[in-house]
Amino acid sequence: MRISGLEVSRRNWLKGAAALGATLAGGSPFAALAQPAAGKTLVIDCHGHYTTEPRELLAFRQAEIAALKDPSQKPSIASLKISDDQLRESVQPQIKFQRERGTDVALFSPRAAGMGHHIGTAETSAEWSRVSNEIIHRICTLQPDNFIGVGQLPQSPGVRPDNCIEELERCVKSYGFVAVNLNPDPTGGFWRDPPLTDRWYYPVYEKLVELDVPAMVHVSASVNPNFQGTGAHYIAADTTAFMQLLTSDLFKNFPTLRMIIPHGGGAVPFHWGRYRGLAQDMNRPPLEELLLKNVFFDTCVYHQAGIELLFKVIPTDNILFASEMLGAVRGVDPFTGHYYDDTKRYVDALQLSPEDRRKVFETNAARVYRLDRTAYYQRKG
Amino acid sequence: MRISGLEVSRRNWLKGAAALGATLAGGSPFAALAQPAAGKTLVIDCHGHYTTEPRELLAFRQAEIAALKDPSQKPSIASLKISDDQLRESVQPQIKFQRERGTDVALFSPRAAGMGHHIGTAETSAEWSRVSNEIIHRICTLQPDNFIGVGQLPQSPGVRPDNCIEELERCVKSYGFVAVNLNPDPTGGFWRDPPLTDRWYYPVYEKLVELDVPAMVHVSASVNPNFQGTGAHYIAADTTAFMQLLTSDLFKNFPTLRMIIPHGGGAVPFHWGRYRGLAQDMNRPPLEELLLKNVFFDTCVYHQAGIELLFKVIPTDNILFASEMLGAVRGVDPFTGHYYDDTKRYVDALQLSPEDRRKVFETNAARVYRLDRTAYYQRKG
Repeated sequence: MRISGLEVSRRNWLKGAAALGATLAGGSPFAALAQPAAGKTLVIDCHGHYTTEPRELLAFRQAEIAALKDPSQKPSIASLKISDDQLRESVQPQIKFQRERGTDVALFSPRAAGMGHHIGTAETSAEWSRVSNEIIHRICTLQPDNFIGVGQLPQSPGVRPDNCIEELERCVKSYGFVAVNLNPDPTGGFWRDPPLTDRWYYPVYEKLVELDVPAMVHVSASVNPNFQGTGAHYIAADTTAFMQLLTSDLFKNFPTLRMIIPHGGGAVPFHWGRYRGLAQDMNRPPLEELLLKNVFFDTCVYHQAGIELLFKVIPTDNILFASEMLGAVRGVDPFTGHYYDDTKRYVDALQLSPEDRRKVFETNAARVYRLDRTAYYQRKG
Repeated sequence: MRISGLEVSRRNWLKGAAALGATLAGGSPFAALAQPAAGKTLVIDCHGHYTTEPRELLAFRQAEIAALKDPSQKPSIASLKISDDQLRESVQPQIKFQRERGTDVALFSPRAAGMGHHIGTAETSAEWSRVSNEIIHRICTLQPDNFIGVGQLPQSPGVRPDNCIEELERCVKSYGFVAVNLNPDPTGGFWRDPPLTDRWYYPVYEKLVELDVPAMVHVSASVNPNFQGTGAHYIAADTTAFMQLLTSDLFKNFPTLRMIIPHGGGAVPFHWGRYRGLAQDMNRPPLEELLLKNVFFDTCVYHQAGIELLFKVIPTDNILFASEMLGAVRGVDPFTGHYYDDTKRYVDALQLSPEDRRKVFETNAARVYRLDRTAYYQRKG
């Protein structure tokens, strides 16, 4: 069967029809039908990592790490040659998924596990961040309709994050990036640096506020054998960061600072009652007031029941569409026949009003990341 | 209005009536109505901590800690005098809640945050565990219809857990305890000991298997400023432990070993698709086969939407009722007018079949903890 020029299976068509029925039942049919005419909703994936790097980039990093023990192996940045064609080629898997899944653009940052802040010194991190961010910038320039840049900071264990300001400014001012990833544990799973809410991090927050860009709270690899990366360290760190924010007055000091907690906020929505209760026991304001003007959750939750919970407990204004592709989970769910990380399907299956749908796919991200300032959004938004 | 001798508000009565209707609609009315006649379902709360200790016990612990710096302050166990009346008095808050909420008995262990494995040496932990477990044993003897004991192990950072065997045997053989708490991070939030799946822990597992008792995976206090205790360290540790199990062959080596992951399994049910996908990407068997014969989740999730998700994704055979009272969250939820940790209400509000209800409240716990061997269960079960 053929609708709007696309082949769709009968099963999917029935799903779509049911969703439309639900939308119509939920409000004015005119509102529902008028929506597309009022301008297509952009589907902005706020969480994508560059996980398909050319081998030259990985070899550069390997040499950089080897040089920590044997300085004679130190690679020069000038020696790193990756052509535009190689970069274009390398992101075709992401672009293919964007097309197939119906997402328009990804906020795109270096591989999270690859940031490796725990490796080497502040100089190591500075060089690697510079190289990584420049590559992202080139990709965003080459494929301006597919990617908007998000940067990596040169954090380093025990080093005051003041050292991140220069790279943060380059990311935003020179490259037009719309955010950075902020690692709440630069020690790689040993959690020896201060919490995110410590004044240690204030110079970064001051600059984020000045530049009016948010941070996604995202750890890198774990070298602690207790923490597997994508299933333990990532999710535990999300949960931990939220609790740090809950117990602090960070957003009193930085009322316009915005943070995205990825992977659906870790354990937070599942334990929303616990967090509401803990805040109450601690005589903190309700979470809506304390955190939800500043903290946002993405939709990187890889099953329908999880996404449903997320939307049940977290206000729609605080949910940003994302898939983390090509990321943590790459397989196809045998129960659904679709990729686990095809999170758009889960969101599409919710009975969101057209207004809420637009918030989650587009306008929340546009607001939080100030996408109105990007050339992309000026063309498409 | 009055039903069965209890005053209930009209609102609650309507809720009850709706639930009954749902039960009836879901299966044979005879099955639903015959259930009570076939024997009352016991409501077993598998996760309770002794958080209302007499001040003498806390003073003893303080002196024990002070003696680490100043041995002259070392308290003698003989000097610790707590009367039976004091113990009885101290658990009245728990018993009152049991009565009010309709739970029958709690599996009761020392205060989790109080275990403090990171404090002092193995000798410190041995003494403190002995004292703590003996107190639990006395309470269970004094209030045999309210409490069944669960022990604390004398884990200590960097010390092989072989040192736990003696106390584990005492707990089970002398005190009749039905489980122990096993701390996956005896370093108090720094995660410097090996993962739970390391051979380091095998002597404990061998003994657990021999004694046929399970372990609840439960951290103690965090002294790492990154991790608030009840909202970050607990939940992150649950998630971390699950991922350790997912990536190991522990249950191939110990097919009858049973572990309870508390707090609803941390982030695991919310991210069930992620964990299924990660196992698949790693060429591990499906989670049902890999873990669900050995791993169980409790219901310490403090809102209706969270409990609903738990029951949606985790098989009923793997869910054990628990409230963690008096524990992490002590307040009343202004949205419901009930205590956050009155988890029985959330489970009651689910439309469980009588069989599933009985599993979650009674028979799963009876099976996992081998309660058939307890005097309590022989009287009441």
